[in-house]
Amino acid sequence: MDTFLLDDQLRRFLREDLEHGDITTDAIFDDQATGLVTLEAREPMIAAGMEQVAARVFCLLGDNLSFDQVVTDGSKVDRGDVLMTINGPVRTLLRGERVALNLIQRLCGIATLTRKYVDAVKDFDVIITDTRKTTPGLRMLEKYAVRAGGGKNHRYSLSDGVLIKDNHIAACGSITEAVEKTRTTVPHTIAIEVETDTLDQVQECLDCGVDTIMLDNMDLETMREAVAMIDGRALVEASGGVNLDTVRAIAGTGVNIISVGALTHSAQASDIGMDWG
Amino acid sequence: MDTFLLDDQLRRFLREDLEHGDITTDAIFDDQATGLVTLEAREPMIAAGMEQVAARVFCLLGDNLSFDQVVTDGSKVDRGDVLMTINGPVRTLLRGERVALNLIQRLCGIATLTRKYVDAVKDFDVIITDTRKTTPGLRMLEKYAVRAGGGKNHRYSLSDGVLIKDNHIAACGSITEAVEKTRTTVPHTIAIEVETDTLDQVQECLDCGVDTIMLDNMDLETMREAVAMIDGRALVEASGGVNLDTVRAIAGTGVNIISVGALTHSAQASDIGMDWG
Amino acid sequence: MDTFLLDDQLRRFLREDLEHGDITTDAIFDDQATGLVTLEAREPMIAAGMEQVAARVFCLLGDNLSFDQVVTDGSKVDRGDVLMTINGPVRTLLRGERVALNLIQRLCGIATLTRKYVDAVKDFDVIITDTRKTTPGLRMLEKYAVRAGGGKNHRYSLSDGVLIKDNHIAACGSITEAVEKTRTTVPHTIAIEVETDTLDQVQECLDCGVDTIMLDNMDLETMREAVAMIDGRALVEASGGVNLDTVRAIAGTGVNIISVGALTHSAQASDIGMDWG
Amino acid sequence: MDTFLLDDQLRRFLREDLEHGDITTDAIFDDQATGLVTLEAREPMIAAGMEQVAARVFCLLGDNLSFDQVVTDGSKVDRGDVLMTINGPVRTLLRGERVALNLIQRLCGIATLTRKYVDAVKDFDVIITDTRKTTPGLRMLEKYAVRAGGGKNHRYSLSDGVLIKDNHIAACGSITEAVEKTRTTVPHTIAIEVETDTLDQVQECLDCGVDTIMLDNMDLETMREAVAMIDGRALVEASGGVNLDTVRAIAGTGVNIISVGALTHSAQASDIGMDWG
Amino acid sequence: MDTFLLDDQLRRFLREDLEHGDITTDAIFDDQATGLVTLEAREPMIAAGMEQVAARVFCLLGDNLSFDQVVTDGSKVDRGDVLMTINGPVRTLLRGERVALNLIQRLCGIATLTRKYVDAVKDFDVIITDTRKTTPGLRMLEKYAVRAGGGKNHRYSLSDGVLIKDNHIAACGSITEAVEKTRTTVPHTIAIEVETDTLDQVQECLDCGVDTIMLDNMDLETMREAVAMIDGRALVEASGGVNLDTVRAIAGTGVNIISVGALTHSAQASDIGMDWG
Amino acid sequence: MDTFLLDDQLRRFLREDLEHGDITTDAIFDDQATGLVTLEAREPMIAAGMEQVAARVFCLLGDNLSFDQVVTDGSKVDRGDVLMTINGPVRTLLRGERVALNLIQRLCGIATLTRKYVDAVKDFDVIITDTRKTTPGLRMLEKYAVRAGGGKNHRYSLSDGVLIKDNHIAACGSITEAVEKTRTTVPHTIAIEVETDTLDQVQECLDCGVDTIMLDNMDLETMREAVAMIDGRALVEASGGVNLDTVRAIAGTGVNIISVGALTHSAQASDIGMDWG
Repeated sequence: MDTFLLDDQLRRFLREDLEHGDITTDAIFDDQATGLVTLEAREPMIAAGMEQVAARVFCLLGDNLSFDQVVTDGSKVDRGDVLMTINGPVRTLLRGERVALNLIQRLCGIATLTRKYVDAVKDFDVIITDTRKTTPGLRMLEKYAVRAGGGKNHRYSLSDGVLIKDNHIAACGSITEAVEKTRTTVPHTIAIEVETDTLDQVQECLDCGVDTIMLDNMDLETMREAVAMIDGRALVEASGGVNLDTVRAIAGTGVNIISVGALTHSAQASDIGMDWG
Repeated sequence: MDTFLLDDQLRRFLREDLEHGDITTDAIFDDQATGLVTLEAREPMIAAGMEQVAARVFCLLGDNLSFDQVVTDGSKVDRGDVLMTINGPVRTLLRGERVALNLIQRLCGIATLTRKYVDAVKDFDVIITDTRKTTPGLRMLEKYAVRAGGGKNHRYSLSDGVLIKDNHIAACGSITEAVEKTRTTVPHTIAIEVETDTLDQVQECLDCGVDTIMLDNMDLETMREAVAMIDGRALVEASGGVNLDTVRAIAGTGVNIISVGALTHSAQASDIGMDWG
Repeated sequence: MDTFLLDDQLRRFLREDLEHGDITTDAIFDDQATGLVTLEAREPMIAAGMEQVAARVFCLLGDNLSFDQVVTDGSKVDRGDVLMTINGPVRTLLRGERVALNLIQRLCGIATLTRKYVDAVKDFDVIITDTRKTTPGLRMLEKYAVRAGGGKNHRYSLSDGVLIKDNHIAACGSITEAVEKTRTTVPHTIAIEVETDTLDQVQECLDCGVDTIMLDNMDLETMREAVAMIDGRALVEASGGVNLDTVRAIAGTGVNIISVGALTHSAQASDIGMDWG
Repeated sequence: MDTFLLDDQLRRFLREDLEHGDITTDAIFDDQATGLVTLEAREPMIAAGMEQVAARVFCLLGDNLSFDQVVTDGSKVDRGDVLMTINGPVRTLLRGERVALNLIQRLCGIATLTRKYVDAVKDFDVIITDTRKTTPGLRMLEKYAVRAGGGKNHRYSLSDGVLIKDNHIAACGSITEAVEKTRTTVPHTIAIEVETDTLDQVQECLDCGVDTIMLDNMDLETMREAVAMIDGRALVEASGGVNLDTVRAIAGTGVNIISVGALTHSAQASDIGMDWG
Repeated sequence: MDTFLLDDQLRRFLREDLEHGDITTDAIFDDQATGLVTLEAREPMIAAGMEQVAARVFCLLGDNLSFDQVVTDGSKVDRGDVLMTINGPVRTLLRGERVALNLIQRLCGIATLTRKYVDAVKDFDVIITDTRKTTPGLRMLEKYAVRAGGGKNHRYSLSDGVLIKDNHIAACGSITEAVEKTRTTVPHTIAIEVETDTLDQVQECLDCGVDTIMLDNMDLETMREAVAMIDGRALVEASGGVNLDTVRAIAGTGVNIISVGALTHSAQASDIGMDWG
Repeated sequence: MDTFLLDDQLRRFLREDLEHGDITTDAIFDDQATGLVTLEAREPMIAAGMEQVAARVFCLLGDNLSFDQVVTDGSKVDRGDVLMTINGPVRTLLRGERVALNLIQRLCGIATLTRKYVDAVKDFDVIITDTRKTTPGLRMLEKYAVRAGGGKNHRYSLSDGVLIKDNHIAACGSITEAVEKTRTTVPHTIAIEVETDTLDQVQECLDCGVDTIMLDNMDLETMREAVAMIDGRALVEASGGVNLDTVRAIAGTGVNIISVGALTHSAQASDIGMDWG
């Protein structure tokens, strides 16, 4: 992630929680008071956002902070492990606490869930990707957390990937026509992916040479047939109805990519505490 | 919610997903094509964000849209129920789809979870509130969803409520001193709440006349004693370890307020589809 | 005040005065020239905004500045006293001069006027507060200046305090109904204040337990009666027609709070010079 | 004034007062309630900002507003005169009230004070101008109010006028050198003005052909001599120590321009009420 | 192009030219005066930006405008042809004139130059693309103009295309290693392109299956050999030293794509007049 | 140029090229890798934007950069000369490269073209100025480049100069009336310039004392007559049809100012390379 691009977002989040200031803290602490806090994992998790998010949030609020024992993003952390310690002005620590925790609890939750999917299919040559089902305003952060968890990202936005869906196909009359129209205007730097529901559609995709064929909500048997038909001539992505119970069987069909909306829309926030002392 | 205040956020969310445009849609549809879509509940839920969020997202992208059968926020919706139909330019519908869905699935999820808590304690004279554990950047929206679900809001930010916590108390030497310092500077329009761990602290709060006493992670028995001690001289808020299994017992202790971080940090997104036809 | 929150405003003020640059200064000085200036009080005043506003304005324009003899906000300053000296690049000093002076002259003016009100009632147990009659765009700064002058702040905005006025009451039919409706939706962290014109209204407020009763434009005798009626069961705020001639008599009625719109809407700018040498 | 340029400012002012919403009004009024309000002058004044500021503030908050009996900016208004009536949603009227009033009370105050200066010198061929001593963030609005009052504007910012002051002169060694340096770089579309303290300096200005000579804090006799020396070869501006007691005598010296910082930094807010009914 | 995304840019451009207003026009025209203007081509050109840029610029400044005879983007226009007529308030027409002209003159210039390249290679099955050598701040607009001229776009930014250059290769030790590293992290929705200087590098690209091979500054003979080697197994892009004199010969080598930095960095503005009457 | 004012623009340009990050570079380089690059002139040019633009672009992306051998803006540079060397993190160098080059190639191009015009008229007492025909969004930068090339700036925007054109004159009925109206409202700090087509108009300008008379598209003979008529009573600006072939003859007519739109709308980007090693 790019601090240059991230800072504006983090500032906005801080302004949301600060509005016109922290009235409790300002009543009690002067700007000389300093403190030491520890961010601690209260359950096992995969770390995500330690330095670029949690530490950065506090840095945006003021100077004279030091960070220690910062865990590397992507590493596995147990209950009770220290994620980082922070030494600095109490006013800064209290102002940033909620925003920092709200962010990294979510990011660690996503990384942790992603890792579960990745581990579940580790015997297969398949990649787990996210989708665009991210929290509005947090896409850069959530896609980073997916990577920290061992997943890969699917397209970032409507601008950097082509995904031809049923209504696009319906409007054009056929997959072939839709692919043709898209190829005419879209940069060659972007691959073309088509969503399919049937093996006939898969065949049509092969005939017009699409880069990736998405098998949408197909049963395992059909997926297996599709993979056989495609036979390496396009990447194959399984999508729809993926969960931790089904992901391994889906991987077993031989698809190359499994995209999982749940990684970002259904991850539980990890439990992280900020303790003073 | 205030459309005036919301529009900037919604625009930002749209820019995140659009970046420099929807390359697939622009390749396939011209700006004359129109379509009709239906937002449909794929599971039972409490509606939230129908008109002010979902409809508004599309309106920000262009004109010539009409909305029908729009469900009222806060109403209970069953699997298969229509949440709204939208008629308008296909380009607009496709551009806004993901952002609108990502938002209302989350908001309905929060409203739905809130309603479960509210229903669980409906025999008691107690209110369910949220916390500041909201998604960064979505506080206004998520707090609205809590209200749609039948809950009330706790303070919005660090600016509009005083909550004296353990580290504030430690810094001042006593609750009494912390309350005193706060009263001297904080506007009289804002109530003073103190977080307590023990009955001694509850007593000290009563002695210095705080407005709300938070019982933090106390067991049921201690809470009951605290409520008896306080005896209406302050509002009593239960906090910590609240879930759907425990909330009814907590309400039975006689507290006035139960604050539930899970409403916003752990709500599952509701399943909503956007169907063309 | 929170530098994090203030910087965007200060930058906007600088851009207003700089537009595309200081054409006179750029014609005459290169970026090597340095100078020493003294901000000096040209009349007695209460200092406000020295470090967080005046010094900060220059810092936002560039580096290599040093500040000395900076007077503490809230301290009383006489004609001829130095408020601060600044050493730095001439280009920076000339670019920031007008914005810095325009700001602190206003802030010191507000602090000075506030102090007059505070001193006028110093024998009484009463607090002087501001109102929302602040200069648009300067609320954070002006409310800070009121505190520097020894006053307290009333609610910051429409979001962080409830004030039920005549048209709210009229719409609901009664104070009781208005208070009830408000209590149902407003966070418990926010106190409820009602504006009253008559003793009957005061009684109704007492009956429904409002936190603060505002006596709006009442004569001294009626205020005295109201205070007696209320007898400590709610805070009492006097509002309307307050000036330096009347404030002491109003304080004598026993009210707890006197809110003074004039603090911010009618303070004269203090006379401050920036001298080179 | 340019609505296109003004809207961003007005929105910012509204956000300052609204933060996350008007909690009192939202508790009491639904979005169907409409009302009629009258803005009324509570003292004689010159109107400024009626349509472009007051009406616009409400329009930015929502639709379905109508404005009647809107007084023309610059016209003289008596105590009790209606400035405008507004019909629209109560929520919109209450949300915008404070910002609209805070703005136009200040603008009318400036227009009213300006008119006093203009009237005081109406027998002379002299113009009254403002200075850059405006409220940070309000320059466009305050300079408009000066024009509504019958004054003219001095330069808007450091970018659109050259004013060579004592420290510029000192740095260059002489007025001649400073003027020369400035002429070399500044666009020919911008006039060159020099601040002078002595008649020798006035002579030097004449010798190097400056466009406007500012007589800074000179006594009446010296100003008269300066005007005679200059004899129409440059515009003459009197500056410093101008108030309503002195302005007529200064005009009598024959200067062309009198700049008055007080127009913007010391105008009293005009008293305007917003009445419901 | 997406009006939703474009408006912020256009507003910024207008603010740059308007700063605090159009002082000449405001002195002379009131807001009632209306006028009719004609945008006319003063030389042959390909139209670009007529409706979405020129017309939109005026619309952002105010209402009551009508546009007629608007030429379609991409169409060929002769000297003297009308590009559009505009009827509306004179103030709006004069305020927007310079920004509208500055923009469309540039966009038409780019479209016109692009068309020349496209026409020059029309006998070949090759596409002409732009590069990232666009004017900072105008990328969306300039890439649109390239499309209007009949070209295609190369990647939009560093985010939506992979281009492995010599320094990337050097850092990794080999093309193979660089491609491998990239494939591991970059979404499958994005094609991988590698810049090559030699036929050995071309071979290495083929061996590791890159999607597009850029032949950077190769002579015609080498390009021809490269095309033969690649033989349809990857797209081939010619880059470097492309101009109207060389482009046809380059196309003759059989490459699929010719990228031309000159389209955006060296296009001459088209001559367009705005005539009143 | 003012770094304070420039930074927001440069950040925007970087965001345009970075969108959500540099995916190629992030795949290949970690944040420890450092490198040394040289910006080199590939043709003769006048340097512009070295320190304030090129170096600044990289600084906005991160720390730990050092710049050496930085050529002074305005100096003449030959083919092969080093413009600057930069040592720093590879990620930063690759992220900023395109934006920095796109900017300085344009700025050096403008400075270089300006110098040609300036040199062409160096025997005459005449100044070369730009116009408002700048690239939208780049005015501050392009006007700086004109100064670096030895030219002067004409008015910056519609706010800081009066230019009365034919449609203004037509609306008023006469030049005299237009000038009169303008003088009444425009600050005295701004000179008044009128565009003329005929000698009669020139005479009318003289009669009403305008500051600058623009001779618009006149032939040399008429210009000579106009200069004789004006005889120093106003500045004379030649405008229209100026190019490197005609500029010397125009200067020979005795005009004071020659404004050249081509400086900014038709300058060719200078060829600058960024080499690694």
